[in-house]
Amino acid sequence: MKLKPILSAVLFCAVSLSASAQNDSVTIRKIYDEALVNGKAYENLHYLCKNIGQRISGSANAQKAVEWSKKLMEGYGFDKVYLQEVMVPHWVRGEKEQGFIIDGKTRTPVALAALGMSVGTPKAGITAEVIELHSLKELETLGADKIKGKIVFFNRPFDERFIEAGRAYGTAGDQRNLGPGAASKYGAVAVIVRSLTSALDNYPHTGATSYGTNTPIPAAALSTIAANKLSETIKNAKGKPVQFFLKDNCQMLPDAQSFNVVGELKGTEEPNQFITVGGHLDSWDLAEGAHDDGTGVMQSAEVLRIFKAMGYKPKHSIRAVFFMNEENGDRGGLKYAELAAANKEEHIAAIESDGGGFTPRGFGITTSAATLQKINENWKPLFTPYQSDHLTQGGGGSDIGPLKQTVPGVTLIGFQADSQRYFDIHHTPNDVFENVNKRELELGAASMASLVYLIDQHGLKF
Amino acid sequence: MKLKPILSAVLFCAVSLSASAQNDSVTIRKIYDEALVNGKAYENLHYLCKNIGQRISGSANAQKAVEWSKKLMEGYGFDKVYLQEVMVPHWVRGEKEQGFIIDGKTRTPVALAALGMSVGTPKAGITAEVIELHSLKELETLGADKIKGKIVFFNRPFDERFIEAGRAYGTAGDQRNLGPGAASKYGAVAVIVRSLTSALDNYPHTGATSYGTNTPIPAAALSTIAANKLSETIKNAKGKPVQFFLKDNCQMLPDAQSFNVVGELKGTEEPNQFITVGGHLDSWDLAEGAHDDGTGVMQSAEVLRIFKAMGYKPKHSIRAVFFMNEENGDRGGLKYAELAAANKEEHIAAIESDGGGFTPRGFGITTSAATLQKINENWKPLFTPYQSDHLTQGGGGSDIGPLKQTVPGVTLIGFQADSQRYFDIHHTPNDVFENVNKRELELGAASMASLVYLIDQHGLKF
Repeated sequence: MKLKPILSAVLFCAVSLSASAQNDSVTIRKIYDEALVNGKAYENLHYLCKNIGQRISGSANAQKAVEWSKKLMEGYGFDKVYLQEVMVPHWVRGEKEQGFIIDGKTRTPVALAALGMSVGTPKAGITAEVIELHSLKELETLGADKIKGKIVFFNRPFDERFIEAGRAYGTAGDQRNLGPGAASKYGAVAVIVRSLTSALDNYPHTGATSYGTNTPIPAAALSTIAANKLSETIKNAKGKPVQFFLKDNCQMLPDAQSFNVVGELKGTEEPNQFITVGGHLDSWDLAEGAHDDGTGVMQSAEVLRIFKAMGYKPKHSIRAVFFMNEENGDRGGLKYAELAAANKEEHIAAIESDGGGFTPRGFGITTSAATLQKINENWKPLFTPYQSDHLTQGGGGSDIGPLKQTVPGVTLIGFQADSQRYFDIHHTPNDVFENVNKRELELGAASMASLVYLIDQHGLKF
Repeated sequence: MKLKPILSAVLFCAVSLSASAQNDSVTIRKIYDEALVNGKAYENLHYLCKNIGQRISGSANAQKAVEWSKKLMEGYGFDKVYLQEVMVPHWVRGEKEQGFIIDGKTRTPVALAALGMSVGTPKAGITAEVIELHSLKELETLGADKIKGKIVFFNRPFDERFIEAGRAYGTAGDQRNLGPGAASKYGAVAVIVRSLTSALDNYPHTGATSYGTNTPIPAAALSTIAANKLSETIKNAKGKPVQFFLKDNCQMLPDAQSFNVVGELKGTEEPNQFITVGGHLDSWDLAEGAHDDGTGVMQSAEVLRIFKAMGYKPKHSIRAVFFMNEENGDRGGLKYAELAAANKEEHIAAIESDGGGFTPRGFGITTSAATLQKINENWKPLFTPYQSDHLTQGGGGSDIGPLKQTVPGVTLIGFQADSQRYFDIHHTPNDVFENVNKRELELGAASMASLVYLIDQHGLKF
């Protein structure tokens, strides 16, 4: 690409709008300017990733992250900064896992990582015949006879036809989330799962599994390269049994004390009516948790910082919430919802950023079709110059979800960033600061601040 | 981010459309399926980047790229594959450049790269006092007295307030494109320019400079870290002269023979009416030219491959054109336009992909406001499910631009990918295959094929 002459006038887009919308348009331009010129989210994320690093619930690092986050928001002079105590699951991975494909006399080591909340294997590991499946339904079809004593290998890849990568993740995810519990019911001794990603590489993607009422059995994710290798080995064995060796050292410790971190700008007109914007502070133990979800918490704090820097005094109280324990328990989200009800707070809206800090595309909004249409008529033109104007039906997040039960009338909204690269690095050691782009992160913070501003000014009842 | 249950029904979006639009919607879904499930652009790009690599105009590698591209398209069985001969400038960088900041007795080496088309320094290099400017206008203000005999250092950074990074590039770009020629007019002995990027790193970004009728003087780009270092040194010197040493070894050789590579599907109804889709095959010498513009050419070939794979027989002739010499001469684009006129071809539209192979956002279309509105009314709903629905005024590309002069009635269209990361790597050794995401590339190819399909079916006269 070469240079083309560009008039500087295009910096400020001329859009024909009503006087009120014109005001909003000017304020939103100021929000973007502040985010892009004086933004702090990127340097804050650097600190979180590089000076603290992984921060799984219950860990010493999670506690460090809580303390640093509180100081950060206090330093910005928000009206109130405080902690909400919450007890969280304390799962530890222990020593690095081992896995081998055993094909006759050949033992091939493969890249794998225990799933979060998995139980450990016996010290000597587990060796058993491996059976490859592509859905949970196949367990039923095959029945206990064929599964008992075996290691079940779920190997259904992402459906690449989905446009939003999160939907491919959603439809493949039962293998990781429910597969181990389901296989246990049929007598499997362990489960290994193809990593939930489109990428073909050697990173295993961890993530929570949930056994429900089934007996826990060890469960681990294979990298996609390892999964392909195992599948190929099974195919080439032509019915001869292939075995797998798995050893992991996971443990559940007693619940640990932890905290949500909350920063608040007090509303000038309706201080007991809240707009919450948040992400989760905890991460998986293998990663810096840059995109998942360092970007989300840093964008949330940035929303309030931008308002303060602009001298914008919100009518309603605006909260940035750094939720604890999204990854393996949702205890922070549950606690926040419980306290909101106990304190008789009214909540207008809650917005979660937990899909990575990539270029913003818009927001998913859980509301009626009629309201969504009104939102689009009124606000879409304000977001179009920023290319963050996909305002679609349905959205929220794991942390804000519980509010729906405890605080009637809250509208749940999910910030939507470009999803294509997210699952390349999600829940892997490659989810690092270096994979976050400064401008993409800042554009996301600005679009979140713009939506909070519009809700603060106009509400969500059209 | 955790898992949320998703119904697989969401794969296919229900949109209320007319019967004709319904047909289009079904075909577009097939286009995306083919691109995402059986896409070849990514593996082709891998070959181009890793087995051929840099391919600056006139180089042996450019010739290799031409031959391989022709074979590739022949292998796909397009109706016609051929070369268009064109003579191209043959600029060579020579031995690696050297640059030092000389502050009293301290010589600090800095990362820099000669600008494309720059002349070389004398063998011993050039040492002179450096003067920091932020615009070409300042040359005029200061006048020849203050500039003569000095090295001019243009150091105006990107204006971060632009939402599309290409606009920041456009407004900062005069420093590189015209700065050396302009400074030469005032007696400067060399020019060094801050790299055209938002990124703060040590990659110098090359790119063409154009001296016009001014005497050529050596010109080089500094990495942004080097530019900041030099600026700081000048500031700390408090008026004491700071010198700079520049040595480069560039040469202009005689023009060389090269080629555009053209692949064609013959129209079933109007074979002499063309829709062209293209990118440029040449790259800068420092880079693999992955995003600039390996992605563009591979997406263009993919458009035709998708049509063949689907059994779609276009009414009009569809061409994929791999243009030669976009980076430093535009000779391929000029030749294509010249031949189109000479052969009395009608051209309905030409679409260029030369902004990187990132997630598609839409298309910039150079047409009347009335036609753009019609295009939006009719086609935007078809692109919305694919999040590639920003159909905006103004767009094209350097390669297709000359068609406007020779073929009346052609509509020029620029494919628009997400721009945020492009200038991090643009014209640097970091523009490598590894920075291209498979799905993003494929989504772009699919959106280009979808637009070509719609133009083929409905034309651009509403």
